[in-house]
Amino acid sequence: MDVARRIEQGLINALALADLPGCPPKLAAAMRHGVFPAGARVRPRLVLAVAAACGDDTPALTDAAATAIELLHCASLVHDDLPCFDDAATRRGKPSVHRAFGERLAVLSGDALIVLAFQVMAGVVPVRPERAAALLLTVSRSVGLPRGIVAGQAWECESRVSLVEYQREKTGSLFEAATVAGAEAAGAPAHPWRLFGEKLGEAYQVADDIRDVVADPALIGKPVGRDVALARPSSARELGLEGAVRHFEQLVAQVVASIPACPGAMALRELVALEADRLVPSEIMALAA
Amino acid sequence: MDVARRIEQGLINALALADLPGCPPKLAAAMRHGVFPAGARVRPRLVLAVAAACGDDTPALTDAAATAIELLHCASLVHDDLPCFDDAATRRGKPSVHRAFGERLAVLSGDALIVLAFQVMAGVVPVRPERAAALLLTVSRSVGLPRGIVAGQAWECESRVSLVEYQREKTGSLFEAATVAGAEAAGAPAHPWRLFGEKLGEAYQVADDIRDVVADPALIGKPVGRDVALARPSSARELGLEGAVRHFEQLVAQVVASIPACPGAMALRELVALEADRLVPSEIMALAA
Repeated sequence: MDVARRIEQGLINALALADLPGCPPKLAAAMRHGVFPAGARVRPRLVLAVAAACGDDTPALTDAAATAIELLHCASLVHDDLPCFDDAATRRGKPSVHRAFGERLAVLSGDALIVLAFQVMAGVVPVRPERAAALLLTVSRSVGLPRGIVAGQAWECESRVSLVEYQREKTGSLFEAATVAGAEAAGAPAHPWRLFGEKLGEAYQVADDIRDVVADPALIGKPVGRDVALARPSSARELGLEGAVRHFEQLVAQVVASIPACPGAMALRELVALEADRLVPSEIMALAA
Repeated sequence: MDVARRIEQGLINALALADLPGCPPKLAAAMRHGVFPAGARVRPRLVLAVAAACGDDTPALTDAAATAIELLHCASLVHDDLPCFDDAATRRGKPSVHRAFGERLAVLSGDALIVLAFQVMAGVVPVRPERAAALLLTVSRSVGLPRGIVAGQAWECESRVSLVEYQREKTGSLFEAATVAGAEAAGAPAHPWRLFGEKLGEAYQVADDIRDVVADPALIGKPVGRDVALARPSSARELGLEGAVRHFEQLVAQVVASIPACPGAMALRELVALEADRLVPSEIMALAA
């Protein structure tokens, strides 16, 4: 099965729980709305890519980690789009969950997606308990306390914020978890993969800040100009557009340099190059030339 | 250590993650606000009581399950109090989390409490992987899909609801998880404990409906009359106050009858009697006499 299908299948299998008797149909629909159709699926692709580079000897664990991480990412988007945060009307080119289903189902479907991630992980503990234990810690920590994505989002509620800490937690932590989980699922040492994920998360956040300033909303499927409108910490605000684009270039170089020596290194470098071009297309890069 | 202290210590240990560097201080404070000071702690007391009745040979697992279940319960209260649901101004006699910290931190602290529950559970997988795997499934299912408390809450967003299904999911599922988890943590067969938890949850929900109609808000620490105001399914609305009180009495009898034969049965019967009296004091019971 190719990578994209493997990822979608994992998510479809997880969401199948929503079709069982007892599940309120609108909750099921709101959860699916938050997960499908596919976004870039960057984080699960990373899990699979790193696992493959490490041998991927237990695909059930890899799939569970990839699914869980994407569900947690989708949950964070559903909650971040709520009126009290970004009040985003669109996401992935269609109405945000709260616009389509109302605020209550947006809160609940986000909650249920978080829990579903752990239901999926719970299911694979018997497969390889010691690896699953490590994966559970990695995944849960990357979302929760003290520095997971929820903590990152909560920095928006503080009067003093470090941009680095904010971005590291809000975006970096789940990227780091994706690379570390890929290694852990395959039984490989996780440590060498941490920096790769961390740098990738940083690059991704800077790209997001850049796109918020220059991109066409129709192109990226969500509103732009939100960082300035909401006075959120942003690289593009702090460094200027040119500075942010240059910073992005440097980060991509650091990402590539941080790929550990392994049989899959070449494939990972290609993935990074493709992703960098998708995130900040050459037309935008040219702005800073 | 006595039961109450053991429960608080588990929660204090879990929340200690919020003091580590990187955690936004307002998020940490909002989470603590949602968890302390102690409410009745009924669910973790049940976990401990059932585990004790089954020998409690691995207290670390019991404590993790009790802590996780209470954190999930607290998370559900924080989110249920949000303006888009109950819009409750008070909880446990003090301002609700969104009144004290704003809506954004209420959403995020609820999310972080859900994740923290699984961080706690992740930490004990290595202790006894096969029991922890069962506990993880029990606990995650009781909150998530298809019939956990989040699904129960989501029935409030449907136009047609079965009162039985709604109450079973919204309240019963976590009670059932508490009794089942107590047995699983102690390595005992879980099946005999399921009915006990289920019936207890039903009784608890009916008591809540009764209290919503007759209780003094100062006494129960949260607004009353909300079921009618919000047109929520309620036993007291459906059966009338007298009918609901009689139904409660019958349920308590069923709870007592469902306690499996075990060395701790007597202690459990006492716990049920005390709890029944706390929930629906004799003055209210007299109303239906």
